[in-house]
Amino acid sequence: NRAWAKALYKAGVLSRKEYKSIDSSLERIILDFLQKKLKIDFSQEDVHTWVLNLLVKKIPAAKKLHTGRSRNDLVVTELRLYLKSEAERLILNLKQLQAALLKFAAKNKEVIIPGYTHLKRAQPVFLAQLIFSYLELFQRDKERLADCLKRIDLLPLGSAALAGTSFNIDRKFLKKELGFLAVMDNSLDAVTARDFVLELSSALTIIAVNFSRISEDLIIFNSDEFSFIELPDEFSTGSSIMPHKKNPDLLELSRAQAATVIGNNSALLALLKNLPSGYNRDFQNDKIYIFSSLDLVNQLCYLWAKFFKKLKVKKEGIASALKDEFLYATDIMEYLAKKGLPVRQAHETIGKLIQYCLKNKKKLSNLSLAEYKKFSHFFKEDIYKIISPQASVKLKATYGSTSPSEVKRQLKKWQGKINARL
Amino acid sequence: NRAWAKALYKAGVLSRKEYKSIDSSLERIILDFLQKKLKIDFSQEDVHTWVLNLLVKKIPAAKKLHTGRSRNDLVVTELRLYLKSEAERLILNLKQLQAALLKFAAKNKEVIIPGYTHLKRAQPVFLAQLIFSYLELFQRDKERLADCLKRIDLLPLGSAALAGTSFNIDRKFLKKELGFLAVMDNSLDAVTARDFVLELSSALTIIAVNFSRISEDLIIFNSDEFSFIELPDEFSTGSSIMPHKKNPDLLELSRAQAATVIGNNSALLALLKNLPSGYNRDFQNDKIYIFSSLDLVNQLCYLWAKFFKKLKVKKEGIASALKDEFLYATDIMEYLAKKGLPVRQAHETIGKLIQYCLKNKKKLSNLSLAEYKKFSHFFKEDIYKIISPQASVKLKATYGSTSPSEVKRQLKKWQGKINARL
Amino acid sequence: NRAWAKALYKAGVLSRKEYKSIDSSLERIILDFLQKKLKIDFSQEDVHTWVLNLLVKKIPAAKKLHTGRSRNDLVVTELRLYLKSEAERLILNLKQLQAALLKFAAKNKEVIIPGYTHLKRAQPVFLAQLIFSYLELFQRDKERLADCLKRIDLLPLGSAALAGTSFNIDRKFLKKELGFLAVMDNSLDAVTARDFVLELSSALTIIAVNFSRISEDLIIFNSDEFSFIELPDEFSTGSSIMPHKKNPDLLELSRAQAATVIGNNSALLALLKNLPSGYNRDFQNDKIYIFSSLDLVNQLCYLWAKFFKKLKVKKEGIASALKDEFLYATDIMEYLAKKGLPVRQAHETIGKLIQYCLKNKKKLSNLSLAEYKKFSHFFKEDIYKIISPQASVKLKATYGSTSPSEVKRQLKKWQGKINARL
Amino acid sequence: NRAWAKALYKAGVLSRKEYKSIDSSLERIILDFLQKKLKIDFSQEDVHTWVLNLLVKKIPAAKKLHTGRSRNDLVVTELRLYLKSEAERLILNLKQLQAALLKFAAKNKEVIIPGYTHLKRAQPVFLAQLIFSYLELFQRDKERLADCLKRIDLLPLGSAALAGTSFNIDRKFLKKELGFLAVMDNSLDAVTARDFVLELSSALTIIAVNFSRISEDLIIFNSDEFSFIELPDEFSTGSSIMPHKKNPDLLELSRAQAATVIGNNSALLALLKNLPSGYNRDFQNDKIYIFSSLDLVNQLCYLWAKFFKKLKVKKEGIASALKDEFLYATDIMEYLAKKGLPVRQAHETIGKLIQYCLKNKKKLSNLSLAEYKKFSHFFKEDIYKIISPQASVKLKATYGSTSPSEVKRQLKKWQGKINARL
Repeated sequence: NRAWAKALYKAGVLSRKEYKSIDSSLERIILDFLQKKLKIDFSQEDVHTWVLNLLVKKIPAAKKLHTGRSRNDLVVTELRLYLKSEAERLILNLKQLQAALLKFAAKNKEVIIPGYTHLKRAQPVFLAQLIFSYLELFQRDKERLADCLKRIDLLPLGSAALAGTSFNIDRKFLKKELGFLAVMDNSLDAVTARDFVLELSSALTIIAVNFSRISEDLIIFNSDEFSFIELPDEFSTGSSIMPHKKNPDLLELSRAQAATVIGNNSALLALLKNLPSGYNRDFQNDKIYIFSSLDLVNQLCYLWAKFFKKLKVKKEGIASALKDEFLYATDIMEYLAKKGLPVRQAHETIGKLIQYCLKNKKKLSNLSLAEYKKFSHFFKEDIYKIISPQASVKLKATYGSTSPSEVKRQLKKWQGKINARL
Repeated sequence: NRAWAKALYKAGVLSRKEYKSIDSSLERIILDFLQKKLKIDFSQEDVHTWVLNLLVKKIPAAKKLHTGRSRNDLVVTELRLYLKSEAERLILNLKQLQAALLKFAAKNKEVIIPGYTHLKRAQPVFLAQLIFSYLELFQRDKERLADCLKRIDLLPLGSAALAGTSFNIDRKFLKKELGFLAVMDNSLDAVTARDFVLELSSALTIIAVNFSRISEDLIIFNSDEFSFIELPDEFSTGSSIMPHKKNPDLLELSRAQAATVIGNNSALLALLKNLPSGYNRDFQNDKIYIFSSLDLVNQLCYLWAKFFKKLKVKKEGIASALKDEFLYATDIMEYLAKKGLPVRQAHETIGKLIQYCLKNKKKLSNLSLAEYKKFSHFFKEDIYKIISPQASVKLKATYGSTSPSEVKRQLKKWQGKINARL
Repeated sequence: NRAWAKALYKAGVLSRKEYKSIDSSLERIILDFLQKKLKIDFSQEDVHTWVLNLLVKKIPAAKKLHTGRSRNDLVVTELRLYLKSEAERLILNLKQLQAALLKFAAKNKEVIIPGYTHLKRAQPVFLAQLIFSYLELFQRDKERLADCLKRIDLLPLGSAALAGTSFNIDRKFLKKELGFLAVMDNSLDAVTARDFVLELSSALTIIAVNFSRISEDLIIFNSDEFSFIELPDEFSTGSSIMPHKKNPDLLELSRAQAATVIGNNSALLALLKNLPSGYNRDFQNDKIYIFSSLDLVNQLCYLWAKFFKKLKVKKEGIASALKDEFLYATDIMEYLAKKGLPVRQAHETIGKLIQYCLKNKKKLSNLSLAEYKKFSHFFKEDIYKIISPQASVKLKATYGSTSPSEVKRQLKKWQGKINARL
Repeated sequence: NRAWAKALYKAGVLSRKEYKSIDSSLERIILDFLQKKLKIDFSQEDVHTWVLNLLVKKIPAAKKLHTGRSRNDLVVTELRLYLKSEAERLILNLKQLQAALLKFAAKNKEVIIPGYTHLKRAQPVFLAQLIFSYLELFQRDKERLADCLKRIDLLPLGSAALAGTSFNIDRKFLKKELGFLAVMDNSLDAVTARDFVLELSSALTIIAVNFSRISEDLIIFNSDEFSFIELPDEFSTGSSIMPHKKNPDLLELSRAQAATVIGNNSALLALLKNLPSGYNRDFQNDKIYIFSSLDLVNQLCYLWAKFFKKLKVKKEGIASALKDEFLYATDIMEYLAKKGLPVRQAHETIGKLIQYCLKNKKKLSNLSLAEYKKFSHFFKEDIYKIISPQASVKLKATYGSTSPSEVKRQLKKWQGKINARL
């Protein structure tokens, strides 16, 4: 309203005096509202009408305030302003969460766990390597929001109902006044398009799916059979009938909230599909969905940052899982390949070796060299050196791998980045 | 495979000779396949196995080709390569469609139609203004794809199953060789993350919704009651029982394909939600959904470009709709506001005026000045000048409005842009 | 709680005196709550804890009330009780809506409108025939709810956390006491299954889609170009800038609420997919989605019943659309087929006839018999008798068609049914 | 076509001779097609046109076959016929799957496993109790399909384009001839309604979610940490780089196919929302979605029946999990409650007891009676008798619980039911 009044003054619709009195009255209303001297009258059509009526009571000139303006361009301008600030807030919240994850990784930087594929143990990896993979996800989430903001941060105001107005409103001035990146170029586009809501909703949905996937990791790690982590008390409850259980409430609810965000996205798609050009009252619901998703995702970031500060690692449970020496099958295959056996044959050899261990209930570290030799003459005394979590990770040589040096590199990278917005 | 062989040669796994013979055999296989001398053997596990087996038959050293590599990093690398090229193709197809829309707008640049809100006639706008609003939509769609590409165009190869490999693979070299923008920084992230598929799917879904909305405009314009357009014969069919009808098949099917793209997006979200870290076989389906959506949206662009080249405007139908003088209510309100009546009162006045017209079955252009004066003394002789489509659009003063000069500006803008990628 | 206390008494856990005092205290709490003497204390974990604490303060024996029971079976029992009563309420609300539609059809039983396919005029039909098609939809919706109730109306209570309890609780007694149809046969199924929520959500989603489709019909009929209906004032608003418009708010919002219901269904699917057996905290959200959908659909029924009582038909607009004589093309084709021309040729003939009319700007009713004869010697003088809406509907001979007698039959059918639940 | 020809003969449109020759030609075409003497000509508009053209070449009278009929009522009749037979087939396939599950339960009827809530161990249950909970799910799925069939099994034919036809077609005769349950009562409803597709799609989606949930159970049971089951070799693959792994391919792909079915349902909802009355070309896609879902769910039933025949239980893994004595916490709580301690206090007591065990690293079975007495004087010597899986299940007393007698009852129930359709 204040920016619009200024634009009307510049367009000659309001006199300097009218503008000044409208502006100061609006400031007064804002202050009174913030100081709770003023309460919204919900019997009125909407908040715009309520403000305008308050104003008109004070200054008759306020009857001119809606000149050249329509609900259609007004509402979408406000929506864009709100989404801008909320998306920015979310970028900050994601940063906070990344910081908490980073601390958790640093605190447990020596911990090695089994890595999984198909929920089957595959190869040892640093816990930090897993946590860094979460940091990468959230990093792309932030970048996605930043890209999305380029298409939210556009001014529709001045497009009136759909055709523009005959008043000489300076939209570039409005853009500057309201802090938008650019002016929308076409009045019909300005009031009709909701792709910016869909794009933000999509970005939020991707973040929610990311939360659900990490939740799943942790819920499984929290099972009695895995016992890799101990949940903070304040983020878990017992059972009314089973007093010893520590249930992963926050994580299960995070999965559940991801479902809500997915539902909001579905609703938005169903809402917009097949809607003809121009304002349609259906648009009213877009706010319900996107506000809900924003609130939920912002909240998840906030709670998870706290959660990771208190999350503990259960070394015993991890140690027990790491006793499974089949975790080194791939390392042995690469060992053979390095000695000169083509990888295809190395693959077959290690297969037979493991069948042998299973049949004879032997561990890889307990086989004699003679037994190894039966499978391949490439086996040497040094085979025993690679059958340990520490040896396994140290073997890795590629950029981005779980080798100690690569994990250290990633740690430094994130520590360097953590104060930047993106 | 060729890039990987080169990397293995650089890592010392393959000798120069081995590399050269693998490389030229792979080239041979590609050529034979392109020249249809070679047919895929679908009895084999997958295309990778088929190629590798072909190769091994020719050169025993090919048994080393899978060294340091896993299906997990291989498959996701190929997926990223494919999505890159398809998203680029889609940007071009959207550009072609924009070009066709631009021509259609230019060809009909004098045509004025009613603009609608709530599917009720609101104010006159240039048809070109509506078409330019479509161009804006597709422009943002292109930019969205370009942003999305930044997160697709990342190299996962070299991450092996999930932990990296002990072979000294130069991933930065691979990146250059395969034309990726950057190397993924974390091996677990490389094989686990599917956010790039979701992001592309979201972008495609937004495009599909845009198509559905424009389809809706045109299906309504094609109804006998509107009669604003005449569909090209090749894009419509008659009825088996009602021979005179020209059904908007392409447009209805476009709406329907938008539903498929929305369904694919839903499926992808349901697929990925709650999946734990590491490769899961569920990932296999992500290709089904995203390939289907890419094909459909690319096809829609292609067909619509052809469609708009032949689409015709029915001036008679439009003229009949423009006879509705209530289209000028807003102009009259602004007329009064300019004369000095606050817009709030002007709004009430025009309301009463229209009630009067409805009651007495009179048209605004047929009221006498005396009749006008009964509603407000601000009415002058010049009121009659604004009651025409041409006058209405000419009154508009704001940037982005439907005024002739603003429509001309937009025409120029798009003509200047049409050869750029974005 | 009262039923459970009785079951505990029967199982010997509570003495007669203990049971009686718990039961009367619970009755007191209910009355106090209904008389607003008691307010929920939201600081407590949940409503169950609040009630139990209230109770324990009064009667120490209430500490035994949770014996043999778990939140897991308690919560799902309450959910089933609530969904039962809400689904029953919805059946009644749908019946009210059907009654309103029936009255609207009866009031306008002489009105003939164009029927549409592909949003193109096809053939004349009675407006009542269209309204009866809505009645059929809502009838199946009611039957679907009734079927769904068979799977909601099952008692889980007595299954405890998941394994049953060692207390001798008589579940068949509980079933009778709580008015359930049957006892659930398996304790794990009782606490794990949520298919009944999904089934109800699906039924609600189908109803919502039905509302959206009818809304679309009416929004189009309300456009200025169609002008078939006049909306009740209380269900439409004007525009802030365009005072003469009567916007179809209720109908647009109905479409929008259908989107919300679709979103709730999506959320529920995303919530439940991949959840392992046993209670998971994720379940907490199922209530959010299904309660929202129930509220919205119940509300739509209520509002639409009011809406149809005041909806008016605009005979002028309809008459103008019925002037389109191509509406009789099919009738003429059948006329020729009856005279002996195979329908395939009749189809071609009528196609040529219409081309002729279009080219020469003639109406079918204005062609001379000689002109008709040029297309087929089967045309006779009686051709002119069939070119009117009344004649067209009267020609129809099949059961369920739009013939006057069939429309009358349907009217009677619905009048006979309107007092039955289904 | 054959039923229609007969109806046309009865209506006097075809002579007896014409009908007979059309009928025998159609029979010929069917036989030739089945014997692969005839191949569909995909260059023709659709299969109906292809058949009609074949026919017309043989018998000129076939030009009358499309009399009184439209694509609109024809296509939806065929869709209903197809969905009927596929839904019936699915009921049978679900029955087969139930039979396989029942055999698996019977074979392992002595096996006790931990039951889970929140993926935390809760209480011991029979494996059969879990399997029977799956049988209950699939039973309701079958009943849902049977209910759904009541609304699929309705005849639309004879409604022509939307208004009915002037030919005297006996629709009740058609109903009998084609084996439908009832005739649709309203011609517009017959061609417009697609709620029956949505209802079937919803039922399939619920089944798919059920499959995904059971998959999740089994994927978790298949993890190395749980090790409860051993997958059949033919339903799992190894890893290209980790030769010892047995990945749960079928189960992961079942989860993935559930995502496809959810996507199809979303697509169908997006397709139908906002579609106006009468046939719209969009409907064409409903077949794509529903056919895909039917195929996938039918296939899952078929594969899972085979899968469960070969699935093995790993007693060692289960035994190891059952060593966790906290599984008996609830039993001990009920033990105390039975001795006279109110359940609320019993809950607190057992909580302290478990804290004590955790702190002192003791097992419940190793505590001395003196130690027990410190927590409550209600503990007696018989406390040691309840700390075993067998004792735990035997304690359960309620109908539907996991007690041996209740599990036996359920086994009998299912054995008695297995030959019935529902």
